[in-house]
Parts: sequence; C-alpha cells; structure tokens
Amino acid sequence: MDTFPDRQLTGRVLIIIAALWCLPLVADTPTPEEIFSIEDLEIARQLREAGLAGDGGFEIVADLTTRIGPRLAGSPADAKAVAWAQRLLTDMGFDRVWLEPVTFPAWSRDFERVEIRSPVPQSVQALAIGYSPPTPEGGIEAEVVMLDDLAALEAVAPEKVAGKIVFIRNRMERARDGSGYGPAVQARARGALVAAEKGAAAVLIRSIGTSTNRFAHTGGMRFDTGVRRLPAAAISNPDADQLERLVALGEPVTVFMEISAQINETATSHNVIAELTGTDLSDEIIALGAHLDSWDVGTGALDDGAGIAIITEAVDLIRRSGHRPRRSIHVIYFAAEEVGLWGGRAWAEAHHENFPRYQVAAESDFGTGRIYEISARVVDEAWQVIEAIQAELAPLGIDLGGRRAFGGPDFIPSLPYGLAVADLRQDGTTYFDYHHTENDTLDKIDPEDLAQNAAAYAVFTWLAAQSPIGFGSGERLLAEEAANAAADNNP
Amino acid sequence: MDTFPDRQLTGRVLIIIAALWCLPLVADTPTPEEIFSIEDLEIARQLREAGLAGDGGFEIVADLTTRIGPRLAGSPADAKAVAWAQRLLTDMGFDRVWLEPVTFPAWSRDFERVEIRSPVPQSVQALAIGYSPPTPEGGIEAEVVMLDDLAALEAVAPEKVAGKIVFIRNRMERARDGSGYGPAVQARARGALVAAEKGAAAVLIRSIGTSTNRFAHTGGMRFDTGVRRLPAAAISNPDADQLERLVALGEPVTVFMEISAQINETATSHNVIAELTGTDLSDEIIALGAHLDSWDVGTGALDDGAGIAIITEAVDLIRRSGHRPRRSIHVIYFAAEEVGLWGGRAWAEAHHENFPRYQVAAESDFGTGRIYEISARVVDEAWQVIEAIQAELAPLGIDLGGRRAFGGPDFIPSLPYGLAVADLRQDGTTYFDYHHTENDTLDKIDPEDLAQNAAAYAVFTWLAAQSPIGFGSGERLLAEEAANAAADNNP
Repeated sequence: MDTFPDRQLTGRVLIIIAALWCLPLVADTPTPEEIFSIEDLEIARQLREAGLAGDGGFEIVADLTTRIGPRLAGSPADAKAVAWAQRLLTDMGFDRVWLEPVTFPAWSRDFERVEIRSPVPQSVQALAIGYSPPTPEGGIEAEVVMLDDLAALEAVAPEKVAGKIVFIRNRMERARDGSGYGPAVQARARGALVAAEKGAAAVLIRSIGTSTNRFAHTGGMRFDTGVRRLPAAAISNPDADQLERLVALGEPVTVFMEISAQINETATSHNVIAELTGTDLSDEIIALGAHLDSWDVGTGALDDGAGIAIITEAVDLIRRSGHRPRRSIHVIYFAAEEVGLWGGRAWAEAHHENFPRYQVAAESDFGTGRIYEISARVVDEAWQVIEAIQAELAPLGIDLGGRRAFGGPDFIPSLPYGLAVADLRQDGTTYFDYHHTENDTLDKIDPEDLAQNAAAYAVFTWLAAQSPIGFGSGERLLAEEAANAAADNNP
Repeated sequence: MDTFPDRQLTGRVLIIIAALWCLPLVADTPTPEEIFSIEDLEIARQLREAGLAGDGGFEIVADLTTRIGPRLAGSPADAKAVAWAQRLLTDMGFDRVWLEPVTFPAWSRDFERVEIRSPVPQSVQALAIGYSPPTPEGGIEAEVVMLDDLAALEAVAPEKVAGKIVFIRNRMERARDGSGYGPAVQARARGALVAAEKGAAAVLIRSIGTSTNRFAHTGGMRFDTGVRRLPAAAISNPDADQLERLVALGEPVTVFMEISAQINETATSHNVIAELTGTDLSDEIIALGAHLDSWDVGTGALDDGAGIAIITEAVDLIRRSGHRPRRSIHVIYFAAEEVGLWGGRAWAEAHHENFPRYQVAAESDFGTGRIYEISARVVDEAWQVIEAIQAELAPLGIDLGGRRAFGGPDFIPSLPYGLAVADLRQDGTTYFDYHHTENDTLDKIDPEDLAQNAAAYAVFTWLAAQSPIGFGSGERLLAEEAANAAADNNP
C-alpha cells in the first residue's frame, strides 16, 4: 500500500476502494464451467477418480528399475532403456513413437575409495562426483583443510590449501520445496574448479542430501573445456560428521582418496517421444516430460523412474478413457538429464522454432511426493485457464501457486525461447534423503503418492488440451513478459 | 484352572477362594519403603532425576566412536579400544580397573563383491557374513536357487542346489522386543553349513534387518571345527527385493560372488572391568555389562557403544552422588561379543565359582531404545526386591515384567551356573534398522533416550546394591529353579 497514489485517503475510504478494486477481479475469474465444456469437465473428473484408483504407473517404474536398473547416460544400460521405452510406448498404443538424438560428453565411474588415514584410520562412504577426473593411480594422501562453504573456499588464501584436500562441510537444509538444495549444491558444482585455482590437491564435500543414512550423494560438477578441475568426491553425512569431529580433536587429519573414472568421447543417446494425436487442434502440443537416464548408483526409481511412470500413466489414463483430446499430447523421455540437461538442450534446439505450436510443457522430476501447488508461466490471457484447471485439481489437495514456473529441469533450456510451462509442485520433504544415492530404489515409491501425481497430470493435461484459450508459447510470451517487466520498472 | 483339584466347586465358591488366594499375595508385596531405607530411596530418586537431566553418557560413545571407530575383535582398533577403556575408567575415578584375557578365533574381512550377472547386470550391496570362508580367487559365478527359509533349504533335494548359489529370502519382522530376529537369523547362522552338505557353491541371504535402506547386515555364522561351510554373504533388503523380482521374471538368474576374508590364528583381547568398591557388603557384586567390540562396518555406536555409555554413566551417576553403595559395583566391558560371546564365556569360566558373591547382573546391548520393562531371574525371596525397584523405575515408564530373564548376550554363558540376572528391556522397534550395518553411527543416538537408560540403570544398580535381601546367584538359584520345575511338573 506504500505506492498507493493518495496517502490522504482515510482508512475507511481505502477499504471501500479496495473492495471495489477487488470485486471486478473476483468477478473476472471465470468458473471452470465458463471456460470448459461440461463434457470436458466431466471427463477431467473421471480422469481424476480413475487416476486415484490406479497405481500411478507403479508397474512401469517397477519394470524399468528391474529390467534395466541403473542407466547412466551413455552406458549400455542407457541404450537398453531407450529400446525398453520405445517398446513400452509402442505397446501402449501411442499413435507415434520416435527417437531424437542427443550427444554429450559421457562420464563413467570405475571406483572411488576414500579413507581417513590419521589420526584414526577408517573407511569413508564416498562417491566420486560426476565429471571428476581420476586421481593419479595409487591415489592421493594429504592433510584435510575444512572450510564452511564455497564462499569460504573462494576467500581462502591459496597457501592455506595448496597441496591439501579441501573439505567443504556445508549442509543441505530440509524443506518441502527442496529449496535447501540450491545453496548447498554450489560446493559440488564449483568446488573442484575453485580449489584447482588455489593449488589444492583434491576436494571432498559433505553430501548434498538430507539423510543421516550413510549414503554418499553423487551429482554433476561444472566443467569448462580447458579449465582445470580437481578430483572430487562427496562423503555421506555421518562420515562428514565424523570428519568434523576428528578435525575438532586438533591433530592433523589426513585422508587418502583414489578415484578411477573415465571421461569418454562424445556419446549419443536419444530422447524418446510418443504422441497421442489430437483432433481439431492436432498441430498444437501439450508436452509432458520426465528423464529416462539415472545416476549409476541406485536404480533411479525416484529420480526419475517415478516421473516416467507418472507422465506415462497420466496420458494412458486419457487414452483409456476413450476420449481424444483436441490438441496432441507428447510424452517425452529425456536423455542425459543428470549429466547436464543434454536431452533438454537437444529438444530446445530441435523444436524452439515451433514453440508457438507447443502450448504448455511440464516435467515430473521430483520423486513421488504429492503435488501441493500448480504454478505456470503462461500469457496473461491464459492465467484464467490455469486457475480453472487448479479448481479441478483442488480435490487432490493442490493449491494455486503463482506465475513463476520453470517447467522442470529439461525445459530450462527452452525457457529463453519463451516456452510456456507449468510446475505441478511436489512435496520434496524427503526427496533429498534418496536422490542421487545408492538408496534410490523401488521400495522407496509409494503407489498411492504416485497415483495422486498421475491423477493430477491427467487432469492438467486433458484440460490444457481442451482449453479454448492458448498458452502463448514463443515470441508472444517473450514479448508480453518484456512489456510487463518494462511496466513494472516504470510505474 | 484346569488343574484345580476339585472340579465340583461352584463358580461362586471358586471366586471366593480365588479372592482369598490373591489377598495374601497382594498384602505380601511390600512397598519400597518396607524394603529399602528412606535414605536409599531418596538417593535412588535423586539418581533418577540426575540421570534424566544428563546426557546418558553420550560423550563417552561419541569419544569411543570418533577416536576408535570400528573395532572388530582381534583387530588393531580392538586393542586400541581396550587401552581407551582402561584409561577412561581409571580417569573417571573407579577404585580398581583391570583386564582379563579373552582368546578366540579371529576373523577379518578384506572385501566382498556381489553382482547380478544375468539377466540384468547390476551391483548388489552385500557384506560377507562373519566366519565366511573366502571364495576361490576370481570368485564364483553360478545360477541362483531361491528358497523361502532355512527349513526349505533343509528340505530341498541336493540335486536342486548342487553347484548353485542358494538365496534364502526370509524376511525379519519388526517388533518392539526384537523377537523377529531369532527366527530369521537361523538362515545366517546355519545356512552355509546346510548348503555345504547339499553340495551348493555359495549362500546369499536377505539381510536379517528391518530397514529398507540399502545396507547389508553382517553378523556371525556357526562354525564347527572340521565341518565344511560355504562362502556366504548377506544382501540388503532392496537388493533382495530386486533379486526376487528378477527370479520372478522366469529366466535363469546368475550371480557373481567374491569374498576375501581371513580366519586367523587364535587372537587375544581383554574384558575390561572397573570396580566401584562397596562398604559393608563390598565382597558382594552387582555386575553391569556391555560389549566393547563391534562389527567392522559401522562405528558400533548403537551396538554397543550405547551400552558402554549407559552402564558407565549409570555407575558414574552413583559415584558423583557422593554416596557409596553397600555392595561393590562392577562395570564390565566385554570383549569379542560379536564373534561368539567370547568375552562372556571367559568371564563365566573365570568367575562362576564365585557366583554366590555376584548378586545380580545385567547387560545393556540393544541400542538406545527406551527401557519399558524390567524382568529378572532371581530367587523367589528376592522377587519382592525387583518389584520394589520397579516401583522406583515406574516414573521412567518402566513396567514390571516377569521372572524369565537372560541378562544380555554376554551373561548367557553364565546362566547354566545360576547367575541371577535382570533384563532392563529396551524398545527395539528400530534397532534392527541399524544393527550390524555400515549405518550404525553416532548420529543414530538420541541423548534423551540414552539418558532414560542411564537413569534406569543407576536406580536399578543403586537399589540392588543396597537391598537387604540377596538375589541368590549360583547353586541356591539353580536348586530353587529345579525344585520349582519339579513342582510344576507334579502338580
């Protein structure tokens, strides 16, 4: 209210004005019945109930994790997963199934070994960070320098860490929206580059995860051609606690690290795409994504077998309903997400010129926590459609979020091209207990949670496909955002 | 009531008789004030409050697990732990601290590697079972035969398993009293012997633990000199699930196993014993136990660093109170429990002739779950003392159990000699989520739970030391048990 033009108005008048001001807004929000046909809404409600009554695609993720297991991008299992996906989607009766190539620099782990050598010899649960170079054969043994976080590493004098193993101890905080991940993960993404500049020998980080179980948490690091980076590994939270306690004893702590890993020639995998072809608006597309690749240490059940199950089941619910959507629906199994969003980059490159046809996109890549909120980046005119969709999602416990959305990791490369996206935000309170660890296995998936997700995606997808209002992907959305930003800066 | 002598009595008469019969029993249960002096009860209540206000010995288990870490019996760390214990107990001001030798056949793990080779190659989280022989160098690869439990293995025709890897899939059930462990653990204890008789190549078992985290659960197997046994490993519950699903696909499942392990010459470790010397009954002893050794894979925080903390803190609470007990109190850190109760065996051999002096014994070896019940094996006359002690433990949430007790694993070898023992039964609902895994680390210990345990042991120990009635260890208890058993069998 600080920017209200006339500060002389009494409180009473203010309230009246505010009431008048709000009224048209309330009146302007159409009911679902004002946007969608009664029949489309009835189908959406049937999809919701059918989704909740189903298994959320549990059999799909069970089959993927059993028959394929871990499927690191570029590995033989990754190629098997692509063939498995192509067969699955074909057998399920999608109208078209095809592959689109994705190239990327493959990395693979042979082994890692981390041991505290003094003052108390003990083994440490560790995983090399993706794109870590190998150590020299025979490993590295050096004293540990413990630092609070990446900022502390950036600030430290090189002579303090030269020749040493830098241990970054920052700890990820648990949160429903997973917001603890971003700040903590900087140590993993950039620690090995910054430490290299300072002349350190290697890097250890506390795992970027919330579990106190003794699993290390892998994940990627940044690498830029020609920039040196150090061998780096993450150690489990209990091991990080132990290392902190040993450092606190005051004697020098030495650690041995050996990493054997390969950075391979360029590898090729494939985005697998399936289409349920629409009717009168079949040229327009609702795009659902999940990624097929996983890290190499678990079976990728939560990350992202669950997403594969959810989006596939959602579209199969629509197919099984016997009702054809107006717009076409694409199910996209992205390749090589974990190792750098390569599938998402390839998809953006291949399709961005057609983004006006891609109405709205959403990726499921956050485990199986229940969806609690829908947000969307769409043109102003389409926000009322999102509101109407949310009204149909409300019985699933899903609130209306805001107009900031990123669509999921694999749609990030498409955002600069103006792709309209929705976030069906999942409860991620326990997601980072399992994410990127050996413990990401099928038993962590609750089919009831999966069913809530699939039901929500089915309702969202169906209504987005039937919407009489388009979502404005591409130049239109970019132009509107630019205009809105300009208006905000010149009130 | 089936054994009631005169079945002609009417229900009404029965009730009167029953009432009369019960009355004296009720009247006969003395109040704590009728057994203990007001001053001793007041001290017990102060100990209870002081115990709850303390850390339950958390600093002790933190120090043990940090400075020593894993301490497999017979390893260099085990010897360091003995020295650590001797110094700790001396520094704490016990009146006497001494070592008693324990000899046993040491076993040590070099490594184990288990992989599913077909139909879907993947690595498996596994731990060799203690006393597993090594596989031939280069490992064993063979088809898997899945069996429900040890009974199924005992029943199977040898030609079904000859040359195969037997996989026993029995699953431990979760229970407060840990009662799921006994039935399931038979597969670990005896599977490798039974399978050897049938000509199998090796044994895999589903981990005898309740966690769905991806940790394998080690532990010992039986071995009898001259009896052949097979290489054997436990695989984590999620890996066992995966193996079951792969077997269910119907194609042959082959597994690779390699175990490198050493069964060494006879090793020597030591029971570490500390005495808080009593006053007028200093020749009589209350014996508290815990074991100092651990498996090699975690840091032995719950098993049994917690027990070390609890009993030490309990006696230190008494020492710090400034009140000397009438009887002497022994704190016994047993050696080589995990690998076969060797410390307990040595202690029984060394002391059983003096058991009439050992009033009552209790070991803490079940993690940090809160104590919910006290049971005791004591002479009839002393049961009222246990009842009175329970009345003082009731504010800690501890009920009265029964007259069957085993005192804890290290006192089992003493039971045939008539040692009187008490069980301060802990809630073990989550104990087998961590027990014998890499995940048994300090962070799993809640100091508040530890404090409840220490408070209970302090009250129990103090009152047992002050009791005007003895507990009857040795020949007296054995004679009374024999007489009672004879009476039960000849009603």
